[in-house]
Amino acid sequence: MSVKIGIIGTGMIGEEHARRITQQLTGGEIVAVTDVNLDQARAVVDRLGVEAQVYEDGQALISADNVDAVMVTSWGPTHEEYVLAAINAGKPVFCEKPLATTAEGCRHIIDAEIQAGKRLVQVGFMRRYDSGYQMMKAAIDGNRLGEPLIVHAAHRNPEVPERYVTPMAIHDTLIHELDTFRWLLDDDYKSAQVLFPRKTRHAHSKVEDPQIVLLETVKGVRIDVEVFVNCKYGYDIQCDVVGEEGIARLPEPQSLQLRQAGQRSNEILMDWKKRFGEAFDVELQAFIDGVATGELKGPSSWDGYAAAIAGDVCVKAQESGAIEQIDMPERPAFYA
Amino acid sequence: MSVKIGIIGTGMIGEEHARRITQQLTGGEIVAVTDVNLDQARAVVDRLGVEAQVYEDGQALISADNVDAVMVTSWGPTHEEYVLAAINAGKPVFCEKPLATTAEGCRHIIDAEIQAGKRLVQVGFMRRYDSGYQMMKAAIDGNRLGEPLIVHAAHRNPEVPERYVTPMAIHDTLIHELDTFRWLLDDDYKSAQVLFPRKTRHAHSKVEDPQIVLLETVKGVRIDVEVFVNCKYGYDIQCDVVGEEGIARLPEPQSLQLRQAGQRSNEILMDWKKRFGEAFDVELQAFIDGVATGELKGPSSWDGYAAAIAGDVCVKAQESGAIEQIDMPERPAFYA
Amino acid sequence: MSVKIGIIGTGMIGEEHARRITQQLTGGEIVAVTDVNLDQARAVVDRLGVEAQVYEDGQALISADNVDAVMVTSWGPTHEEYVLAAINAGKPVFCEKPLATTAEGCRHIIDAEIQAGKRLVQVGFMRRYDSGYQMMKAAIDGNRLGEPLIVHAAHRNPEVPERYVTPMAIHDTLIHELDTFRWLLDDDYKSAQVLFPRKTRHAHSKVEDPQIVLLETVKGVRIDVEVFVNCKYGYDIQCDVVGEEGIARLPEPQSLQLRQAGQRSNEILMDWKKRFGEAFDVELQAFIDGVATGELKGPSSWDGYAAAIAGDVCVKAQESGAIEQIDMPERPAFYA
Amino acid sequence: MSVKIGIIGTGMIGEEHARRITQQLTGGEIVAVTDVNLDQARAVVDRLGVEAQVYEDGQALISADNVDAVMVTSWGPTHEEYVLAAINAGKPVFCEKPLATTAEGCRHIIDAEIQAGKRLVQVGFMRRYDSGYQMMKAAIDGNRLGEPLIVHAAHRNPEVPERYVTPMAIHDTLIHELDTFRWLLDDDYKSAQVLFPRKTRHAHSKVEDPQIVLLETVKGVRIDVEVFVNCKYGYDIQCDVVGEEGIARLPEPQSLQLRQAGQRSNEILMDWKKRFGEAFDVELQAFIDGVATGELKGPSSWDGYAAAIAGDVCVKAQESGAIEQIDMPERPAFYA
Repeated sequence: MSVKIGIIGTGMIGEEHARRITQQLTGGEIVAVTDVNLDQARAVVDRLGVEAQVYEDGQALISADNVDAVMVTSWGPTHEEYVLAAINAGKPVFCEKPLATTAEGCRHIIDAEIQAGKRLVQVGFMRRYDSGYQMMKAAIDGNRLGEPLIVHAAHRNPEVPERYVTPMAIHDTLIHELDTFRWLLDDDYKSAQVLFPRKTRHAHSKVEDPQIVLLETVKGVRIDVEVFVNCKYGYDIQCDVVGEEGIARLPEPQSLQLRQAGQRSNEILMDWKKRFGEAFDVELQAFIDGVATGELKGPSSWDGYAAAIAGDVCVKAQESGAIEQIDMPERPAFYA
Repeated sequence: MSVKIGIIGTGMIGEEHARRITQQLTGGEIVAVTDVNLDQARAVVDRLGVEAQVYEDGQALISADNVDAVMVTSWGPTHEEYVLAAINAGKPVFCEKPLATTAEGCRHIIDAEIQAGKRLVQVGFMRRYDSGYQMMKAAIDGNRLGEPLIVHAAHRNPEVPERYVTPMAIHDTLIHELDTFRWLLDDDYKSAQVLFPRKTRHAHSKVEDPQIVLLETVKGVRIDVEVFVNCKYGYDIQCDVVGEEGIARLPEPQSLQLRQAGQRSNEILMDWKKRFGEAFDVELQAFIDGVATGELKGPSSWDGYAAAIAGDVCVKAQESGAIEQIDMPERPAFYA
Repeated sequence: MSVKIGIIGTGMIGEEHARRITQQLTGGEIVAVTDVNLDQARAVVDRLGVEAQVYEDGQALISADNVDAVMVTSWGPTHEEYVLAAINAGKPVFCEKPLATTAEGCRHIIDAEIQAGKRLVQVGFMRRYDSGYQMMKAAIDGNRLGEPLIVHAAHRNPEVPERYVTPMAIHDTLIHELDTFRWLLDDDYKSAQVLFPRKTRHAHSKVEDPQIVLLETVKGVRIDVEVFVNCKYGYDIQCDVVGEEGIARLPEPQSLQLRQAGQRSNEILMDWKKRFGEAFDVELQAFIDGVATGELKGPSSWDGYAAAIAGDVCVKAQESGAIEQIDMPERPAFYA
Repeated sequence: MSVKIGIIGTGMIGEEHARRITQQLTGGEIVAVTDVNLDQARAVVDRLGVEAQVYEDGQALISADNVDAVMVTSWGPTHEEYVLAAINAGKPVFCEKPLATTAEGCRHIIDAEIQAGKRLVQVGFMRRYDSGYQMMKAAIDGNRLGEPLIVHAAHRNPEVPERYVTPMAIHDTLIHELDTFRWLLDDDYKSAQVLFPRKTRHAHSKVEDPQIVLLETVKGVRIDVEVFVNCKYGYDIQCDVVGEEGIARLPEPQSLQLRQAGQRSNEILMDWKKRFGEAFDVELQAFIDGVATGELKGPSSWDGYAAAIAGDVCVKAQESGAIEQIDMPERPAFYA
């Protein structure tokens, strides 16, 4: 008896998720779709060959009787509305990041979910499902490194389009790290600072690139993250956790070693969708399984809220050049 | 409309395959099981929570109306009989290696399949579905190495039980390489020779360990494979392909790098089931998809036969110490 | 015709240098030694089996007619005095770091050297002679990385004694990086900031450990250096230079890869003397050759001065927690 | 008091050795040279700026009163004569490989040396002095691998000139491995076999390339060596020793890791002189020190003889295609 899923937003990521659920994952099926562009929604239904109804809008889809669960993969500013509607309909909802474009919006969702008395939201932080990060989490939780003291990380993209401006380095790029480190360290942020190194000649005029974001956690861990979105050479995610007893390094994606033309080399991926392809599979399977068993376990609304708060402070730190405090509200027992 | 599968043999590997199909893969379901031990078959049905009928024997299972496809994961000597029965029933069959315990048995299967006029058999050579070998195959086929000239390989297990005797290094262990290299190189074997290095103190009295198997292909590629089944330190599969323009090395399984106690180290897996876990997923999904589309594409009966013939000659070479010729019959157009 | 060298200070490092010159390097010989402990000076002469005169003090040694060049390997606070004396005697002098314990002391030396009208001082920053750093320098200078934008570095020691207190993380440890980055990037420092992560349980009470030092250069490069002197696992020097076109990583010291007991591992050195053993050889050979040809080329008094100024500001930044400016005086043409 | 050395043969390797002794090593000086081309000998003296006498021929040089030790770096066929002359003159002699072009010639040298009653010969097998092989030797001797069972090795050159013919793969290339494994394993050879894989398109018509040489030792270790002298991509020396308890891999030469243009890569050296540059330094220093202390410890005449015998059998195996026995005469107590 499979979970019947409705998808709001059939752009690139929405279609990929629909394809995954239809062709690769088990226990779920796409029964409803909608998009701001209904033709596109219909085209996706055709391409996937699924029997899914195309709805006029997200609200109609959410209300549909045969929709068990909702996936929100529409434009960011619409997330809050659809997630709230799903909660109000008592239906589990998977929401791509951001949960909402403002921390206040996230807070509305949290209030609604607490009101509903049941976890209904999973936020699309797929890195938690990456096998490499899972190994790192296991090493930390298994106390193989002792207490974590420092994290060195890098998030590098080959290039970004002209519309990508300085704050997007936080909201679109660092946002993944902001969730990942909280989860990895089981910790919260206390302060943020942003440094601007000399700018690469490959960056457009409206983006400072690279940037270094410095984070401090409540437990005192110091984190430095290089965000470099026009690094040219590849999509490269690095993470070293330095603990009292040793250091763990995130594994590189699997690749063939070639000896050729005076070089011993391994390919570096250029595309984030390949880098985290398997993580997306595991993430969505976890959502489907969570819906089926009535127990969602992945990144919660609270995690989405925490990342949003930290992101806002990072943007403030970009602007001020100062060390900015991050004040997280107390975590409700509901999300303990 | 999922593929309805009956499983003959619910030992460890049969149960794992059933679990994969039920919980991880898409498009297939277990509807029938049997085992020489019917209680065990029933226990597996219970553990998986599937609605599958338990049949008295393999023949009954194969004949069952609601069984679309058969998986043979029973004791090796029974494979031939069940595969033949499935072919005769016109049902696709996935058969764990060996396809048959003798080359003659494989030949019977080939004759039956040709007679049936349609590919109905997929042999369980899972390495072809391993992501690392897939990368290597792509590099060779994409002519990135030039013509392959040499393959250096190793197949190492931590240890084997007392019942594992010298010829099993071929039939149970090398058998995977025997298929893999044919596929990787798109080539056939011409001769085999086996060398016995000094024996490790960790080997039981009835097994020569390690061994080095030397293979020559029709195209002139020379292959050396170290088979070392009591290497103690891990389950370690190595493969370098040396070509005219460069060399490719099979990737290591992903692992965390730790810096600790004077060492920079990565874990080596101890268990072949973990090493090829994803390959099993991909392999069985390919079988299910092949059944659904009516077009099986994986390792064929002919591949099972070719591996069996080469394996028999390797055992002969173990005994003679000489270079032994491998005479492959001409490949029928049916398997072109 | 070998360079006749007098050594002031025959402690561990002085004796090692004397041994190098006597047994491994070419073109130099130890003809004079002194130490605050004259018995120790005599013992070193005996152990090395050289015909060297033991002098009452450094000034006497410097004045000795047969001393062509001086090595200052005595206690830090005495360096300034001996270097000045050597300059005044017109004799080339190799001085272990620090050149002087204060920036003002370095300035005295610079004034004296300019007065002497000739480069007479080489400071003991041996990393410039390390083969790995040399490769990195060549890559940067050869424009293989494009303009450098960021440096990520780490300086880790297994442990430090009780007398090692917080500012020593700068003066004794970071001092090497402070010189190395200036040389590597052909740049100067503009600001410094120091972060204190959660303290490791392995650190003594008087040292904050680890620390993260953030440096900004005049060209806008941002540098983060982890200084972790009780990391337990090894003496580990890391350096990544991020440029516009790519990234270079400092090579690990050569080591055997072992596959054993479930691990693929390489040894990490525990001892800085082993890590930079060859660099010491090359450094001292460069000094001897520089003396012989009358042209010293290694790290100059100015480099010693620049490191001292930056070090002082880093200590200030340790205390203030703020971003502190580094004001380098203009470089005299003499050191261009 | 430095060792006064005469060099017979001032071609490329002779000049390099002379330069090393003059500029890099300690305790030796070049006082005499000769060459079949006396102009070249004079040119080398000029280039190095040494005060060395140019002799008419090797015999005159060997007899010269001020020559303490002799280096034979002339054309291979002349080695035997000069080594014998040096032994007869009671002077230590370093002889580049081969010690003699025939095993019989080596035997003459052994007889002469035993007659002289003192070790006077060091053969130029420089790999024993390579830091990587030294680490491997230490691991084996320290019983970290248990008993060695198998060696996998490769000797790859980018390309060879037209005059390089099939047997030179043994006499000029494999000869280094033939010495290295005897030393590494403290063992002798028992049989040899040579396999010819498909030939690379980059090989000239008179050389089979690549080749695989299989060796068996007295203790039962099996060795496979890929000799591939037109591999194009680099000068690449590989060696894995498989023991009962684990496996050691020869370290790669140190190199910078670059991340660039979709690749994570390290340079592979193209030139054997760079690969073993430091080994040559250590080797010649050992010779100088051995002469100075009157105790030569490096590869002996017996080692040169053993390599020659094994090499002859390997050439025989190239021709016969069969497994050929290697019969080593009993080792005289003199070389114990």
